[in-house]
Amino acid sequence: MPEKKDELITLAHGAGGKKMDELLSESIMPWLTNDSGEIPLSDLDDSSVNENIVFTTDSHTVKPIFFPGGDIGSLAVSGTINDLLALGGEPLALSLAIVVPEGFPLGDLERILESISGILKKEGFPITTGDTKVVEKGDIDEPILTTSGIGKRHPLLNKNMEFAGGRNTRWLSDNNLEPSDKIIVTGSIGDHGITILSEREGYGFGGDVRSDVSALTEVMNEALRVGGVASVKDPTRGGLANSLNEWAYKSSVGIEVREKDIPLKGWVSSASDMLGIDPLEIGNEGKFVMAVHPCRAKKVLDSVRKTDDGKDAAIIGEVKEDLEGVVLKTEVGGKRILETPVGDPVPRIC
Amino acid sequence: MPEKKDELITLAHGAGGKKMDELLSESIMPWLTNDSGEIPLSDLDDSSVNENIVFTTDSHTVKPIFFPGGDIGSLAVSGTINDLLALGGEPLALSLAIVVPEGFPLGDLERILESISGILKKEGFPITTGDTKVVEKGDIDEPILTTSGIGKRHPLLNKNMEFAGGRNTRWLSDNNLEPSDKIIVTGSIGDHGITILSEREGYGFGGDVRSDVSALTEVMNEALRVGGVASVKDPTRGGLANSLNEWAYKSSVGIEVREKDIPLKGWVSSASDMLGIDPLEIGNEGKFVMAVHPCRAKKVLDSVRKTDDGKDAAIIGEVKEDLEGVVLKTEVGGKRILETPVGDPVPRIC
Repeated sequence: MPEKKDELITLAHGAGGKKMDELLSESIMPWLTNDSGEIPLSDLDDSSVNENIVFTTDSHTVKPIFFPGGDIGSLAVSGTINDLLALGGEPLALSLAIVVPEGFPLGDLERILESISGILKKEGFPITTGDTKVVEKGDIDEPILTTSGIGKRHPLLNKNMEFAGGRNTRWLSDNNLEPSDKIIVTGSIGDHGITILSEREGYGFGGDVRSDVSALTEVMNEALRVGGVASVKDPTRGGLANSLNEWAYKSSVGIEVREKDIPLKGWVSSASDMLGIDPLEIGNEGKFVMAVHPCRAKKVLDSVRKTDDGKDAAIIGEVKEDLEGVVLKTEVGGKRILETPVGDPVPRIC
Repeated sequence: MPEKKDELITLAHGAGGKKMDELLSESIMPWLTNDSGEIPLSDLDDSSVNENIVFTTDSHTVKPIFFPGGDIGSLAVSGTINDLLALGGEPLALSLAIVVPEGFPLGDLERILESISGILKKEGFPITTGDTKVVEKGDIDEPILTTSGIGKRHPLLNKNMEFAGGRNTRWLSDNNLEPSDKIIVTGSIGDHGITILSEREGYGFGGDVRSDVSALTEVMNEALRVGGVASVKDPTRGGLANSLNEWAYKSSVGIEVREKDIPLKGWVSSASDMLGIDPLEIGNEGKFVMAVHPCRAKKVLDSVRKTDDGKDAAIIGEVKEDLEGVVLKTEVGGKRILETPVGDPVPRIC
């Protein structure tokens, strides 16, 4: 058991990078670690699996709560759906726990619920249980929404695995990568993080600024229908850089990605340059990163590109045997190690 | 769809009483209501049921986070276990989402996790998925913990129902009550609410003051082993008064309870008198209220009394055909209507 530490929590402890790994591995997991279930807590995947039930949870503290392209409600519900999908689950039901400060406008709460309602209807999943707490003014600054989700094994998963090169796995877990897998990202990177930063700090990067918040049920269905998908990640906190490094570490492989192939919107690129932020380290809320068997990668890409959320999808790299960690081939032809971000450049983006 | 209201949220909206019913029925449920699953959201039970999976969630904002008898960690995990049990579920896995302010002592976070760990070990259930968010100092005053839980149908439930007078129900839902059912409370009422109030306001009611926070797996197992349990409620916000009124409303029955039979600790009674608070309206965190078929009630009582958490259990009343709502027979022999509390006398107790 850990020794209780005489230290204070910092923002970096929640930023999805190295400091957060430390918090989890040294202060949280030692009290909880167990190997219950097929995908246990200790795997630190997007979801866990017990007796074929996929299960996930996330608290959402995004600030501001309304932003171009979404709000805390669409963010929470989409995030939970995406976490269930990412492991190979088919969402069955969601829960919603709301903590709201006294004095918050009831109309704004209803706007958030309306936006949740829109996503549930579009994706076809219900919220079946919930909780509402009101706390005194000043005890919290904005509402906090926590969504959990349960799912079953996706009905297309067995067929998908037939094309995944004989891998012995029932779920799309982080440790499934094998050399020569292709890395697909389902669209442009950094939209959400830059949008939140722009709104919060009033940078005014212009009219195109818009979060990518979206539930990716259709993207996942298209990919699994083609088959050969070995693993899927939801690149939220820590962004693409963090997802790739988690894969490399958990699958004990190296990954090489090409900077020129990573989809990046103009406004994200210029805002990142201006602020000195690496867009690869910024959170996304409507993108998947997929590792796909090389024989199916092009087909999966074509199929994902037919969807609204996946039309900018691209193959950005591959898994390499003779490599350690994650290497980025830069546009000018050099190579640099793409490390796990130490801290998130933008706190409270989700 | 509701019209978005030009009104501000107040503490009463979260207090588990009439104002909260209004918030749920007018501003939240219209966006979410659906009839998915065997026990849908619209039933507003402690948990929902979809494809035989029991599912529940709660955010915890208790203040102070450490108190005599427990802390926010034991409160969260026990509450979720109790919500799964109350509907007739057997917990399978829990999730834990933590939101913590920057500057919070890491050692205190570990104390909370240690307390969670103790309950999980005692009860035998795992936490399999989680989330940790750090927000800026001042954005929240104290950590907020949200726990969700999934469970299966309790293995003793079929046998239990055989003794429940031929009721046609698969779960211990709120609408199961029938005339002449006995009402059992599994121990003394008001301990948690008075403890929190005492700690927060520094009343110093003395050394006995202690919350009843506890996971009631053993109590439930004993009751179901005997059989005849028709419905179980977890009397948290709004206390016993709220639970009885929810039953009366949802089962369309009247309930009569005898004040003299309701177990009440001396310090809870004197503190309630002093503060002008009705202990029947105060939240409990380690008690069940059970409606039991009259032929099995005494046996269930004896069995529950053998457990640590149920040793003060008592039969406090019964379901009556010729009655509307909830009636309290007072100690002096009078009768008064026990109404749904309008607001909670003590906010942030859970």
